[in-house]
Amino acid sequence: MSQVTYPLILVNFKTYLQSSGKKALELAKICEKVSKETGVCIAAAVQATDIRMIASSVDIPVFAQHIDPIKPGSNTGQTLVQAVKEAGAVGTLINHSEKRIKLSDIDEIINLAKEFNLFTCVCASTPKIAGAVAALEPDCCATEPPELIGSGISVSTAQPEIITATVDILNKINPKVIALCGAGITSSEDVKIAIELGTKGILIASGIVKAENPEKILKDMALIAKSSN
Amino acid sequence: MSQVTYPLILVNFKTYLQSSGKKALELAKICEKVSKETGVCIAAAVQATDIRMIASSVDIPVFAQHIDPIKPGSNTGQTLVQAVKEAGAVGTLINHSEKRIKLSDIDEIINLAKEFNLFTCVCASTPKIAGAVAALEPDCCATEPPELIGSGISVSTAQPEIITATVDILNKINPKVIALCGAGITSSEDVKIAIELGTKGILIASGIVKAENPEKILKDMALIAKSSN
Amino acid sequence: MSQVTYPLILVNFKTYLQSSGKKALELAKICEKVSKETGVCIAAAVQATDIRMIASSVDIPVFAQHIDPIKPGSNTGQTLVQAVKEAGAVGTLINHSEKRIKLSDIDEIINLAKEFNLFTCVCASTPKIAGAVAALEPDCCATEPPELIGSGISVSTAQPEIITATVDILNKINPKVIALCGAGITSSEDVKIAIELGTKGILIASGIVKAENPEKILKDMALIAKSSN
Amino acid sequence: MSQVTYPLILVNFKTYLQSSGKKALELAKICEKVSKETGVCIAAAVQATDIRMIASSVDIPVFAQHIDPIKPGSNTGQTLVQAVKEAGAVGTLINHSEKRIKLSDIDEIINLAKEFNLFTCVCASTPKIAGAVAALEPDCCATEPPELIGSGISVSTAQPEIITATVDILNKINPKVIALCGAGITSSEDVKIAIELGTKGILIASGIVKAENPEKILKDMALIAKSSN
Repeated sequence: MSQVTYPLILVNFKTYLQSSGKKALELAKICEKVSKETGVCIAAAVQATDIRMIASSVDIPVFAQHIDPIKPGSNTGQTLVQAVKEAGAVGTLINHSEKRIKLSDIDEIINLAKEFNLFTCVCASTPKIAGAVAALEPDCCATEPPELIGSGISVSTAQPEIITATVDILNKINPKVIALCGAGITSSEDVKIAIELGTKGILIASGIVKAENPEKILKDMALIAKSSN
Repeated sequence: MSQVTYPLILVNFKTYLQSSGKKALELAKICEKVSKETGVCIAAAVQATDIRMIASSVDIPVFAQHIDPIKPGSNTGQTLVQAVKEAGAVGTLINHSEKRIKLSDIDEIINLAKEFNLFTCVCASTPKIAGAVAALEPDCCATEPPELIGSGISVSTAQPEIITATVDILNKINPKVIALCGAGITSSEDVKIAIELGTKGILIASGIVKAENPEKILKDMALIAKSSN
Repeated sequence: MSQVTYPLILVNFKTYLQSSGKKALELAKICEKVSKETGVCIAAAVQATDIRMIASSVDIPVFAQHIDPIKPGSNTGQTLVQAVKEAGAVGTLINHSEKRIKLSDIDEIINLAKEFNLFTCVCASTPKIAGAVAALEPDCCATEPPELIGSGISVSTAQPEIITATVDILNKINPKVIALCGAGITSSEDVKIAIELGTKGILIASGIVKAENPEKILKDMALIAKSSN
Repeated sequence: MSQVTYPLILVNFKTYLQSSGKKALELAKICEKVSKETGVCIAAAVQATDIRMIASSVDIPVFAQHIDPIKPGSNTGQTLVQAVKEAGAVGTLINHSEKRIKLSDIDEIINLAKEFNLFTCVCASTPKIAGAVAALEPDCCATEPPELIGSGISVSTAQPEIITATVDILNKINPKVIALCGAGITSSEDVKIAIELGTKGILIASGIVKAENPEKILKDMALIAKSSN
């Protein structure tokens, strides 16, 4: 278990078989290795079933991919913040494009996470929505235009104005909320541009999980993030 | 990891603090102890974060509380059947009253679970809904009238006709689907009546999790289940 | 306001602009004209905003496309069975593939609809799900394999076994539930085959709504439905 | 059909039988009468089934209680902005506490409503959430602490700081977004305080709909709103 620092490379393991169970542990170990070699924070947002195994085996920040707006008690099939915390998570994704939630639930989950000292990364698909998120005071906000997710199209080259606009609106509404670039990252060059445009890192999934050589890509990205920061 | 047999006492750990994380492991060990002493199958439906730890430490059937109708890939914050299976679960609850899902998703989840040889227990709040569930061919169906859940009111004494009607409709529509009594179990006497009325066991939560002495209650229930079967 | 008879051509107006507002009224008048000419029941499932206008202007059965499982009172933005009934609807679609709902809600909505004497047509994507629906005792069940909806592929020629299997399972579980063919109807020939395979009519949307000459197609379908029944 | 002006009394008809169908029309006529007598804008948010009848009979602004984030086409059982507009609505409630929706859908619905020149009133349960709403640029935002809804407890006397904080945060994030007091209004005195605290009106439901003499209460509230504005 370790804490989040910037620049941050936050790897969303999603539910790929390449990043489930034992394979998730292998990938987390690669994240740990690169993080140690480069000094750059690499965090892993893993499936609930894998949090404890990975958090107890690897010295990087482990995130949940979602928590539910519930208190301990009569809830079945939901993810409890206390359980995620006890299993070793230090943060959570919230409102990912594949897990969009109600505005009121985003607020409630951020509040619950803060109560248990979990780092919160809320996803937003447009600058305007990022502005709304900023008002809810999470730790960071990842811009992820849905049309770019998993597309191989680079947000930093194809739509740099989305990053700029997001950074601007976060600064205006709540400058404490850090911007991450959350989609369209396919190369270390994209990381460089994303950071130069004002973000403090990236949220990335298939670009790492499905890479032939995740270690190489992660290392390239970490080094460039470090030098661009 | 072990398989389900009847009579079955299926303990839903829900998200009580008394049955989360290390406390969940302690309770699972009590389940294991009583199961070994009595020869009665006691299964534990635990939070996703706890499946691996419990399944690797305790020799009872471990269930997920829910799985999502998804395939491996771009899904965030959801529960993948392959991940649950790899973590050691041998079954799953589906459509619990606290996690009601769409009819089409129940069907899809049952199909996914069968593909991975997971035992399926689908919850139903009325005999008519149990009939609908039976048509989808799960392994078992737990009747849980919402008004009785956690109420301390006994289904077997207050509403024995619900159990009888459920058993009858399952037999009519799909006799392979086993009936469990899913709410209103507060004493070993209730277990006796539930089994005499034609079920093959119970789904129980707070009656065990919040008991002062879970081991004693579980043992009483297991012994009476064995002798009534 | 008139009642449902068989064979039934149930036209789902969805939210096409061609079948919203005044255009919906025009299309409903075409349905009425063809129904009068042929003696075949043609019903229109229209948007909630259009129910009253159409039901008060046209003498065909008007359906809601959905109702919510609620009682009168503190509900905002939902569709109340009493309101739909008072506006002139005589029936409702339930669980359409574009409005999938929870198993428990399907049951509750069928019960509400019966209480107010509304005809219920529940959609199901597979024969197995149709079996589950049959256990809930609606008036009819429309089979609509999602892969065929709006595809232009004919269920009756491409997958006649789906219709046969649906008819068989409805007969087995609840012979009072009438089968409709709910997707893949593109020609009057499809209607003929659907009825010969044991259904009592069709649920159709774009095939009518987006047709250049809806009256001609409807008339062809109505005549063949009548002679095949 | 008429447009929204301030001070605004926005009456949410919900799904009470007292405000459904013909009863809804009667209540809307009372709203119209009081509005004409006092010169204060009284708008009615009615069920989708009643929009057309009321908008064509009464000269007050008629609102939908919800619209869905959809385009014309293959959607069943949903509420299309074009249909609501064509039926005569000039605005819509969004994200009412009884119809909470996803953050991304709030944004999409506001955009759709603007495209069709519909007035948007988004509900928010806390000042922080009101801030998030303000970033999405609706016309107005109604604060409705869930604990006060329908409670008979007055927000303006019991929790005036919620109103003040909401007005402040709207001013800070987006001063164009008008504040309404959305719960806990039980008397004309509450209306006075709500307006003095910086709102431009109220969103009210049971206080009018279930009143023995809605006309008297509405008139009292309208007069005091006028003189306090």
